[in-house]
Amino acid sequence: MNKDPEARLKERHLSSERVYDGSFIKVRVDTVWLPDGERAKREVVEHPGAVAILPLTERKEVVMVRQYRHATGEVLLELPAGKREGDEEPLACARRELEEETGLTASQWRVLFSFYTSPGFCDELIYLVLAKGLSQGEAHPDSGEFIDTVTVPVDEAKRMVFSGEIKDAKTAIGILALEAMGEV
Amino acid sequence: MNKDPEARLKERHLSSERVYDGSFIKVRVDTVWLPDGERAKREVVEHPGAVAILPLTERKEVVMVRQYRHATGEVLLELPAGKREGDEEPLACARRELEEETGLTASQWRVLFSFYTSPGFCDELIYLVLAKGLSQGEAHPDSGEFIDTVTVPVDEAKRMVFSGEIKDAKTAIGILALEAMGEV
Repeated sequence: MNKDPEARLKERHLSSERVYDGSFIKVRVDTVWLPDGERAKREVVEHPGAVAILPLTERKEVVMVRQYRHATGEVLLELPAGKREGDEEPLACARRELEEETGLTASQWRVLFSFYTSPGFCDELIYLVLAKGLSQGEAHPDSGEFIDTVTVPVDEAKRMVFSGEIKDAKTAIGILALEAMGEV
Repeated sequence: MNKDPEARLKERHLSSERVYDGSFIKVRVDTVWLPDGERAKREVVEHPGAVAILPLTERKEVVMVRQYRHATGEVLLELPAGKREGDEEPLACARRELEEETGLTASQWRVLFSFYTSPGFCDELIYLVLAKGLSQGEAHPDSGEFIDTVTVPVDEAKRMVFSGEIKDAKTAIGILALEAMGEV
């Protein structure tokens, strides 16, 4: 058995067909060679990537936003987040989105790690960015964004992940990461 | 100000246009009324939903799978997972997928919570299911699935989330949840 998982597991790209070219997502169907020489189709949703901000107050609270998510049909509680514009640096995107959505600025920033939200069919990569040293200013959401800001103690937010009151993946990761980092 | 966030934030569905009808994802573009009376377009990727299994050994190890993910162009380390078939119960789906991908069966099962992977544009909901009391059998992956099984101590897996060696959202959530639950 070949010990190199890259070589043994990897599929080789053969051709692509563009099936949808939308305002922020695009969809293509690729044909690939599987490791056993068979062909297969792979549906791929292309996404520009995003950042999620983990704004932590001195009192160990996390600042979240509540907004309606049409794809889910629900109002969700989430970390402030937004799509990256072109090759925008994650930190620059995080600063912009945090201020737009919540009016907060922060004096301490740290990119924690990044993750794919749904790697089975989508290339969306989210950078998780910790923001501390918060100061409150004026929010100015994008046109078409309707957002409430909600501040919750981290312990309570963790309970809300397990109870199902928080049901967004990036938000669950951020809140659980705070505990793993010893921040609560 | 209306205090009910559902009423104050919610968008109302006006019409839908189907733009892609694929083998497992579908895409539609909806027109909605925003809370301020303006119209907007919302792109929605429809997904059947999935389960992710968190197989925990008695030695506090988590069993993961390594597989190539064409959408990302990378071999990723992930929790065993799979799409739900129709109205399949999450636990039934979890049992089936764990055995297919890893050959493991489990005597103790618990649905922990569920989350949307990318609620800004996709309805994919993943149920996270804890599996304990593991017994090893024979794996039998679906045709076209090429998978390695990898067993990692939970502490090491947690380190791999922060180092970027684990970069899948459901996997990060599962590993961080183990610590939050006092399972390590």
